[in-house]
Amino acid sequence: MYNIIYSQNGVCASDGFFADGVSAGLKKDGAKDMAFIYSDSECEVASVFTTNKMFAAPIKHFQSMGSFKTNFILINSKNANAMTGKAGIEDINEVLRTCKDVINPIMSSTGVIGVRLPKEKIIEGAKLFDYSKRDSSSASKAIMTTDTFAKEIAFKVKLDDGSSFNIGAIAKGAGMINPAMATMLCFITTDAAVPKNEMQEALDEVTKTTFNAISVDGDTSTNDTVLLLANKKSEAYDKEAFKEALFKVMHFLALEMVRDGEGATKLVTYKVTGAKDDREAEVVAKALSDSLLVKTALFGEDPNWGRIASTVGASGVECSEETLKISFDNLCVYDRGKLYFDEEMEKKCAIVMQHKKFTISCDLGIGEGSFKAYGCDLGYEYVKINADYRT
Amino acid sequence: MYNIIYSQNGVCASDGFFADGVSAGLKKDGAKDMAFIYSDSECEVASVFTTNKMFAAPIKHFQSMGSFKTNFILINSKNANAMTGKAGIEDINEVLRTCKDVINPIMSSTGVIGVRLPKEKIIEGAKLFDYSKRDSSSASKAIMTTDTFAKEIAFKVKLDDGSSFNIGAIAKGAGMINPAMATMLCFITTDAAVPKNEMQEALDEVTKTTFNAISVDGDTSTNDTVLLLANKKSEAYDKEAFKEALFKVMHFLALEMVRDGEGATKLVTYKVTGAKDDREAEVVAKALSDSLLVKTALFGEDPNWGRIASTVGASGVECSEETLKISFDNLCVYDRGKLYFDEEMEKKCAIVMQHKKFTISCDLGIGEGSFKAYGCDLGYEYVKINADYRT
Repeated sequence: MYNIIYSQNGVCASDGFFADGVSAGLKKDGAKDMAFIYSDSECEVASVFTTNKMFAAPIKHFQSMGSFKTNFILINSKNANAMTGKAGIEDINEVLRTCKDVINPIMSSTGVIGVRLPKEKIIEGAKLFDYSKRDSSSASKAIMTTDTFAKEIAFKVKLDDGSSFNIGAIAKGAGMINPAMATMLCFITTDAAVPKNEMQEALDEVTKTTFNAISVDGDTSTNDTVLLLANKKSEAYDKEAFKEALFKVMHFLALEMVRDGEGATKLVTYKVTGAKDDREAEVVAKALSDSLLVKTALFGEDPNWGRIASTVGASGVECSEETLKISFDNLCVYDRGKLYFDEEMEKKCAIVMQHKKFTISCDLGIGEGSFKAYGCDLGYEYVKINADYRT
Repeated sequence: MYNIIYSQNGVCASDGFFADGVSAGLKKDGAKDMAFIYSDSECEVASVFTTNKMFAAPIKHFQSMGSFKTNFILINSKNANAMTGKAGIEDINEVLRTCKDVINPIMSSTGVIGVRLPKEKIIEGAKLFDYSKRDSSSASKAIMTTDTFAKEIAFKVKLDDGSSFNIGAIAKGAGMINPAMATMLCFITTDAAVPKNEMQEALDEVTKTTFNAISVDGDTSTNDTVLLLANKKSEAYDKEAFKEALFKVMHFLALEMVRDGEGATKLVTYKVTGAKDDREAEVVAKALSDSLLVKTALFGEDPNWGRIASTVGASGVECSEETLKISFDNLCVYDRGKLYFDEEMEKKCAIVMQHKKFTISCDLGIGEGSFKAYGCDLGYEYVKINADYRT
């Protein structure tokens, strides 16, 4: 057995990790726009990247390095270094060459696509880095784009034999979130003595039910990145405990991203059960979290369950109105052909929808497949943010 | 050879077809909410319906009739008769039993899902029908829901031998449009001497490049219906001429639906070429027309070509930033690795985007596949309309 308890200082929660944010003049008004994560010893790395075929230069750069250990990640906001071809990769090399005391440094970028990296500013910014700083919060602010709040989390895992390890992370992401994937960045550090192959295995597995289960707008970015760095300073490790702690870190940050979804006012869990298999349940849950008609109904606090039924039917999976069941939290509005949606029920459901968090459940009544996805509403603010993101 | 010329009176353009709209009190303020299309002789029927598995009672009713000739379609707005199970079909039978002088009558509905048909009102409304009326315009108004304008069109086709036939239609649709499919209804009548098998073949083929090439929000309704009725009163027919006239009817109405897309201010053609094959070109074109980030950029008149590149990359088809080319009308902003998007070009593109109609072209540079899709922008008005559609 083991205990997982909340801890402090995000990506610096583990001994030996350092981080900070600085201002390089990429954002207006002197806001922080560059961050680093530094480790005083070499780390194993596990990674998950966007599935977008136009993946950005930082991802190409990472992948060209093969298998390696690192002690440094440089992150910038405001510019994605995407659609920049070979020049984009050369820009990264040029920037990273100026960083001192780094081994196989990694770069990660988020921002506008199709504009060359302002490398002079970034090189100047990197000179401001102080590797002795342990300011995870400052780093988490520097990587924000349209995020309205910074995102970090840490846990301490106590094993039964008295040993313990730490895991913590910072992340950004508020739109273009569908992280099969969409600009979200997440950097996780740990001092657990996790074997390299189990790092990647755990990261892949946990991504499915966390970052790949959320959606703000169904769009998929060129830059999505999740990196897990392990310096193994603690000798403690337990496979199950590590995976659970990793899940807690990623689940928390994934939900923070939805909660901070551009213009979002509600966080909705789509719980799909009774599908033919888990894959079909996932298709339905994601179709619901992506549907514009469902999202605008959420924004209007309108318990328009017909749109939910319609979206299930349109998703292409095996389903039938004779076996479908739909509930808002614990209020069942439609049960295998029976309508429970009278005026009184409508009022009750409208009250559920006024909450900041609630669950829409769809039981397809076909098999044993299940999946939970997380989404938000879409309102005027989303339009406003995205209609003039560049300006 | 043949000539296709604009004509009048929509669904009543062909001899022997009658139509009108009446008010049955389903809509507020006495607006017309029921329509009929009547033929004084029996017609062959071809049909295309939604792919939504929760397809509505009127579609089930139609499909239960097997192969048949008809002379009557009854259409109501405000209630979709969807998710209403067997009771929904019984309601249709009960309504249609009260209609006089009809052979194998068809019913078609659009509106809110999951509410039983107000059949008493509809039965009373049907009593107001006057089968001698030839008011296509009135019928086209009665079937509107969130449409802001009525949609009808007609053509006369003159063949070289001096003979001629007519084809005309009414349609509704403004949201939930992705008519693979989404509540759009379209009723087409013709007096052409078209053989039954060629009717269905032509309808299927033309649907692909018209109603199945448009998108307002990517959602797919339970009720989408396209019906083609042929009374064969004219002895004229030419396969190519008929197919072209049918295309003109459906293409016009499809674009009218996008133009009337909920809250839409722009009609955008997505021209995709150079894909591996036509299917992959279609995937990309539809991904672009469905992307929230692209749609909000259109609304903001922001030539954010990076979102276009990103959406192409996220669509899952074969593509590469080294072979991709992107243009706004005839302004090329990105050509196989070369960025042409400086400040001056941005201003020029922004001017293109201020137009009501323009084309975004993506050449994937891989193969010979091509497809054109049609979409619109997404602004505050879409949110407003859909956040309180029911109220």
